[in-house]
Amino acid sequence: MGYESDKPWGGRFKEPLDKKAEAFGASIHFDRRLAQEDIKGSIAHCSMLVKKGILTSGEGEKIIEGLQEIKKEILDGKFIFDPSLEDIHMNIEKRLTEKIGPLGGKLHTGRSRNDQVALDMHLYVKKEAREIERSIILLQQVLLELAEKYLDIIFPGYTHLQRAQPILFSHHLMAYFWMLQRDRQRFVETYQRADMMPLGAGALSGTGFPIDREEVASSLDFGNLYENSMDAVSDRDFVLDFLYSSSLVMMHLSRLSEELVLWSTREFSFIELGDAFTTGSSMMPQKKNPDIPELARGKTGRVYGNLLALLVVLKGLPLAYNKDMQEDKEPLFDTVDTIKNVLSLFADMLRGMTLHKERIEESVKNDFSVATELADYLARRGIPFREAHAAVGHLVRRALESKKLLGDFSEQELNQAHPLLALPEARALASPYKAVEAKKCRGGTAPEMVREQLRRAKEILQKGSIS
Amino acid sequence: MGYESDKPWGGRFKEPLDKKAEAFGASIHFDRRLAQEDIKGSIAHCSMLVKKGILTSGEGEKIIEGLQEIKKEILDGKFIFDPSLEDIHMNIEKRLTEKIGPLGGKLHTGRSRNDQVALDMHLYVKKEAREIERSIILLQQVLLELAEKYLDIIFPGYTHLQRAQPILFSHHLMAYFWMLQRDRQRFVETYQRADMMPLGAGALSGTGFPIDREEVASSLDFGNLYENSMDAVSDRDFVLDFLYSSSLVMMHLSRLSEELVLWSTREFSFIELGDAFTTGSSMMPQKKNPDIPELARGKTGRVYGNLLALLVVLKGLPLAYNKDMQEDKEPLFDTVDTIKNVLSLFADMLRGMTLHKERIEESVKNDFSVATELADYLARRGIPFREAHAAVGHLVRRALESKKLLGDFSEQELNQAHPLLALPEARALASPYKAVEAKKCRGGTAPEMVREQLRRAKEILQKGSIS
Amino acid sequence: MGYESDKPWGGRFKEPLDKKAEAFGASIHFDRRLAQEDIKGSIAHCSMLVKKGILTSGEGEKIIEGLQEIKKEILDGKFIFDPSLEDIHMNIEKRLTEKIGPLGGKLHTGRSRNDQVALDMHLYVKKEAREIERSIILLQQVLLELAEKYLDIIFPGYTHLQRAQPILFSHHLMAYFWMLQRDRQRFVETYQRADMMPLGAGALSGTGFPIDREEVASSLDFGNLYENSMDAVSDRDFVLDFLYSSSLVMMHLSRLSEELVLWSTREFSFIELGDAFTTGSSMMPQKKNPDIPELARGKTGRVYGNLLALLVVLKGLPLAYNKDMQEDKEPLFDTVDTIKNVLSLFADMLRGMTLHKERIEESVKNDFSVATELADYLARRGIPFREAHAAVGHLVRRALESKKLLGDFSEQELNQAHPLLALPEARALASPYKAVEAKKCRGGTAPEMVREQLRRAKEILQKGSIS
Amino acid sequence: MGYESDKPWGGRFKEPLDKKAEAFGASIHFDRRLAQEDIKGSIAHCSMLVKKGILTSGEGEKIIEGLQEIKKEILDGKFIFDPSLEDIHMNIEKRLTEKIGPLGGKLHTGRSRNDQVALDMHLYVKKEAREIERSIILLQQVLLELAEKYLDIIFPGYTHLQRAQPILFSHHLMAYFWMLQRDRQRFVETYQRADMMPLGAGALSGTGFPIDREEVASSLDFGNLYENSMDAVSDRDFVLDFLYSSSLVMMHLSRLSEELVLWSTREFSFIELGDAFTTGSSMMPQKKNPDIPELARGKTGRVYGNLLALLVVLKGLPLAYNKDMQEDKEPLFDTVDTIKNVLSLFADMLRGMTLHKERIEESVKNDFSVATELADYLARRGIPFREAHAAVGHLVRRALESKKLLGDFSEQELNQAHPLLALPEARALASPYKAVEAKKCRGGTAPEMVREQLRRAKEILQKGSIS
Repeated sequence: MGYESDKPWGGRFKEPLDKKAEAFGASIHFDRRLAQEDIKGSIAHCSMLVKKGILTSGEGEKIIEGLQEIKKEILDGKFIFDPSLEDIHMNIEKRLTEKIGPLGGKLHTGRSRNDQVALDMHLYVKKEAREIERSIILLQQVLLELAEKYLDIIFPGYTHLQRAQPILFSHHLMAYFWMLQRDRQRFVETYQRADMMPLGAGALSGTGFPIDREEVASSLDFGNLYENSMDAVSDRDFVLDFLYSSSLVMMHLSRLSEELVLWSTREFSFIELGDAFTTGSSMMPQKKNPDIPELARGKTGRVYGNLLALLVVLKGLPLAYNKDMQEDKEPLFDTVDTIKNVLSLFADMLRGMTLHKERIEESVKNDFSVATELADYLARRGIPFREAHAAVGHLVRRALESKKLLGDFSEQELNQAHPLLALPEARALASPYKAVEAKKCRGGTAPEMVREQLRRAKEILQKGSIS
Repeated sequence: MGYESDKPWGGRFKEPLDKKAEAFGASIHFDRRLAQEDIKGSIAHCSMLVKKGILTSGEGEKIIEGLQEIKKEILDGKFIFDPSLEDIHMNIEKRLTEKIGPLGGKLHTGRSRNDQVALDMHLYVKKEAREIERSIILLQQVLLELAEKYLDIIFPGYTHLQRAQPILFSHHLMAYFWMLQRDRQRFVETYQRADMMPLGAGALSGTGFPIDREEVASSLDFGNLYENSMDAVSDRDFVLDFLYSSSLVMMHLSRLSEELVLWSTREFSFIELGDAFTTGSSMMPQKKNPDIPELARGKTGRVYGNLLALLVVLKGLPLAYNKDMQEDKEPLFDTVDTIKNVLSLFADMLRGMTLHKERIEESVKNDFSVATELADYLARRGIPFREAHAAVGHLVRRALESKKLLGDFSEQELNQAHPLLALPEARALASPYKAVEAKKCRGGTAPEMVREQLRRAKEILQKGSIS
Repeated sequence: MGYESDKPWGGRFKEPLDKKAEAFGASIHFDRRLAQEDIKGSIAHCSMLVKKGILTSGEGEKIIEGLQEIKKEILDGKFIFDPSLEDIHMNIEKRLTEKIGPLGGKLHTGRSRNDQVALDMHLYVKKEAREIERSIILLQQVLLELAEKYLDIIFPGYTHLQRAQPILFSHHLMAYFWMLQRDRQRFVETYQRADMMPLGAGALSGTGFPIDREEVASSLDFGNLYENSMDAVSDRDFVLDFLYSSSLVMMHLSRLSEELVLWSTREFSFIELGDAFTTGSSMMPQKKNPDIPELARGKTGRVYGNLLALLVVLKGLPLAYNKDMQEDKEPLFDTVDTIKNVLSLFADMLRGMTLHKERIEESVKNDFSVATELADYLARRGIPFREAHAAVGHLVRRALESKKLLGDFSEQELNQAHPLLALPEARALASPYKAVEAKKCRGGTAPEMVREQLRRAKEILQKGSIS
Repeated sequence: MGYESDKPWGGRFKEPLDKKAEAFGASIHFDRRLAQEDIKGSIAHCSMLVKKGILTSGEGEKIIEGLQEIKKEILDGKFIFDPSLEDIHMNIEKRLTEKIGPLGGKLHTGRSRNDQVALDMHLYVKKEAREIERSIILLQQVLLELAEKYLDIIFPGYTHLQRAQPILFSHHLMAYFWMLQRDRQRFVETYQRADMMPLGAGALSGTGFPIDREEVASSLDFGNLYENSMDAVSDRDFVLDFLYSSSLVMMHLSRLSEELVLWSTREFSFIELGDAFTTGSSMMPQKKNPDIPELARGKTGRVYGNLLALLVVLKGLPLAYNKDMQEDKEPLFDTVDTIKNVLSLFADMLRGMTLHKERIEESVKNDFSVATELADYLARRGIPFREAHAAVGHLVRRALESKKLLGDFSEQELNQAHPLLALPEARALASPYKAVEAKKCRGGTAPEMVREQLRRAKEILQKGSIS
């Protein structure tokens, strides 16, 4: 009857697949990463087929035993992946058939590669979303530790990268804690969105075999199942959710990276990253380069690119499965590796960071970032804020012109700017410590409020993983 | 004392802002859209200042009265926006001062433009997220109505845009219902993420005035407040969440659009969109163009672009506020308009769509999409699925070569392909109706399962808006 | 003297690099792809050092001999890449030193890894841009062959995916020829932009050794050299140009892919792709899926993602080299593989495509796409075009309502629409052949114009590669 | 005959277009920007129709006179744009018909809106590409002026934002000159790619009227014309080229922006931007914010987003025109405005920038960036470079530990690091001036080489605009 195919779909074809086309379409070099999920899903499917009497318990036992052996072969690195078998599903099925004969083919009863790969992807995304949530928690813990350790350090706060107002260094670090808290929340939601069982959707319309989808869902620990088989095989929202959540983690860490790079400059000299997390130059012996934050910042582009790639793939695709969707895997796997590496390295790197306390202290004293306090003081004394602001603004300009700091002005000079500014209580305000101390509203940088903030953060961490 | 600025920050400056630079930096031509939120936030802030004794109740009354008048001026289109006043905040404050004198300046006590604009953005995103959730519900309702109306229509189901298996048209439509259900969920989460009150963060470190942030949060109906003032003014996650959620709605509707465009072709001829939602050609008198789905598909690019724009803006930005962040607004506003228009037009357009039932019926009969049924039948009779598949595959090839359909084969020919296929019960299966009927697992396309699906969908809609 | 590093930069460091950090920062797993370029560049550098008397000719000979051996080891797959040596440059240098002793270290005289890697990237991009230009030419040749082969086939032309006007199938194919011609031009420009020699820029400021950059440029066949050392090490424009040029090739081929997928549907049935370039379904025996065009369409997302990734990496990077820039390589390599595969597969696949001529012919007859001809006819007879359009438009509507074609109307009916339409010469126009024949302006679809177009295309191809 | 449409395509429609759908599909609110190009193109088309005898010269005169009047109305702001007329083409044609009666309709002879809008876009892109090239030149001139002015300033050169080697500030500025030179080149190529005349392509297949496309091309100053009518109406490559070229300009300026922001910090204090290009804070009187570079950096996201939006729109679109393509205009117009503003503001802002020379001088002296010189010195004396590097690296580490600079070491200490380092000629090298002076290879930072560089740059500018 013509060409005898080694493909699971060869029946109607007369000619074999072109070798280059086969290589182009093959996914085994990357989807082998789903091997554990594929076997786990197959075992659950098989057990259900037995329960429903579609396979005998003898058949089921043999199949599951075969799958367990294959699982071990893969874990032991003994499994030989064959590119001509296209994908991980066929590689495993072929091996199963080698082991237990034609019975292996019965495992495919009531399912298609379309719902099978969807299942694998759901299992994988759930697993990784949970692991990443935990990595985020570890990084939050480090931030919290550091924030507790450095509670006494007053640090310049910036807007527009101009010194704005003094803050506690702990307060600055904790800003990242809360960003990461939202990141955790997003991964929890990603987990929940992935927590939908697609098997039973068949190629697109469901299956005619009397399978039990609830049973499979329950044995694989799924909270929900797809209510529509076409949606089940067409949906990659959960992968996009994962890529988006990852993009935000990277965006947040790119901001921290930028700050670590800045603080490590000779000009800022606020911190020094450990030797273990920096590199030198092959040409310039004095260099100590903050490679890790630089690379993390750079890899933000990569993760954004992965998100865009899949958004583009799915745009305008008619239902249900299209081959374009095979392009969902590499961006996902690459993102998983990137984000896990970055989270873990940041935890270690931050722990090993040294603060140059004197340099920071000197910086904080040496600027105008207490000007707001003076303006606020005038406002509290009844001067409309805009007028108060202008008076202090002019004072700053005079200081810059005469290379003075605010504390250097004589009473007479202050009086000239605004009579109230010459009062002792006004002059006392021109201290970074006082300025920090004053910010006592909830979420403010006053030490007591930061301590309160740390308390809340600790409570959150004590609750542990949400997903 | 030199240059007398009309800016709220002129004090330390000697020269006025360059006119082109002013125009470049101004945001009033787009942030005027936040006017209602800005006034609402100011009223809440003012009321709190009164409660806390920072303003007298007389002062508070005058300020609020002034703000109410300004609100009315804006709604009546009588307010004159002045570009030289940079942004919506200064436009309103200036007008307030015109109305009630220097007292207007006191409204700014204890806040900065950084937390003020953050508040406006949160209020705006919350409002729009909720409205969009409702627009999604309306579109879901239309899909549900249509699915109920067309429950008897068998339709070709595709994978790879090749006819795969027959399905119910209702089943196909409902796939979009569930995509939109996830979209709703994402907008609900967007709403929740935006439900954090930033006011009180000041420029970045909090404020020295004894304000009450919980009071403001409660009066503005916020569920949470930022625990860290630097995070409060640096965070635009909620805007990104909004843009991402919108991107997925657009992606889903681009898939539906693609299908509507396909189904409207002469070649498919499955549907006809109403005259009210199509246009003609200035050159070709016979044309009827599915402009709305085409434009919706195209506008997917625009919304993706908006998401990426803001992701790029925030990459690598040091804390806290930077002027780059002003670029958060136009992508947001543009996305709000796009998505609301598309959702609303799709609801109307789908309602007015006509199905060409005979053509669809004829299509369904006229292909090989029941081949899976025959393979499944063999499998149920104990033939390993792979072998069953190959037998039917060969049959299909023969049919194609001889321009036959599966129903056209003689018993003998069927017998040659596989003896079991020649049995009457096998031949009975080769009907689209039977094929659809057979998919009885949950989520499958069998009429009883689709009815069950519709029941669940209705339940969901009855619960109404989540946000 | 403390920690003895195996790194080329260890001098000032006390602690070794963290293992995870090392793995994170290492590039050897992908930049080994630059091995040939790295050696080629090193040989040119070394020869110049000898010419300038910086190395003796004996030293130069040993170094070059060593490099040649390493080159051979790599080509033979015998070279062992060591991840702890970070990158390809250090791997090769280390091996060189193993072979020829400390002299190996002298090769690095007057250069830094910053200009070295820039050189490798330029050489690589030039090589690949040229190869891709040639792959594009091969695909253009296939399109031209097909266009010549199918010159007699009239095909429906679409706008809005609605049948618009009949065209020659050759004309349709040739539209892609011209897109690819622009793609070639872009790769030529990419080549030219990459044709700038960076070596001699050192780490960023040039070198103090009396090297001869013109000599190196000339021996490596560069047309230009960077006039500014900081630009030389900071510039990745040429990589972006490559990614952008590739994105447009993919965009063009995604459009062709979409059409191939459409034309392969049961509904269109215009073409059949060869068995060698399609796959089947593991569940549905009748399926023949256009995997290659689907995947190519999907991979458009991937290439767009690569472009975005690098754009993001470079945004806001201060001069000169930053570690972020290491992220330039993977997107480039991945894009090279993708685009070369796609171009080559499309050439083979298109050659093997079958046209269903009868089906196409029948389609062309069976619609209203000649309506424009009638409107044009009226216009030529002096009727303002808008009025002519309306008259024919109404006729089409009547035809649709009564399920007729334009040729089916009686003289009386035509007369009612517009008296001129009832004339024999008007009725003669309502033929697809006449409609095609009429488009005689340059670039039009009339057979003589398409022949002229093919002639021009052939001339272009005869000139061969531009780069 | 049913519904009498005010649309140019109403003939076959029974119901009017839905009002919301009309608003959604209308483009007049943005494509009115093409009014001048539309009229220019119409005049050229009309003149050709007269030359070819398709219109009489009397008809042609009336039409052109009418168009000239409309042009004047638009320039004078007296033209009333009607949204219900969809687009700029219909707005102008309607007005023409009001002025000269049904004859106005004859202008549309032999063209379609598809080729008409393509023509408008080509004319617009050509005009703007040329204007932007000129804006780039103006910015290059400013950079050149500054580079000449500051030739005596030694500045820290950075890699990884760590001080690496001293450079001339002029050299640093000139790096941007060369980036902009590539940007110019890209806009020239964009211009050339847009320099293709599409008119005559009709809706997609050409036209049956005996028009003369060469005549139109020549009268509109086009160098080429499309050889394929389907390509002519489907092609938006030239718009993408424009968006890509703009993206790279923005990327380059985002790098400069980042540096200006950094240099303006208290910590760097290398420059001060003029009051006219900075703003203050409404809360913090001392602030002087580098708004312009921050906004420019932020707007990079916007331009990237525009590029991606159009790439996404075009992905997978079948030939020829589809309504999705209407989404090409807003990204283009927005990008034109953004990039022209940024280029012009940067020219003015850079001219007004002040350098803090003493601070810069002090910085340069006060670090280890001459370490490379010492290592190079050892290498020149025959020490393998890797060994030289290690010796100096250790010296740096000792300096850091003892808070010394390299110049502070005693002869004995230097001798211990490496005997050669203790020689007077070695110690003399440890000066930033010497280090700069030494980089004498072409493109290096030695003053004589920078002067040479400036000479080359001046030559380039003297040649003037390329496009």
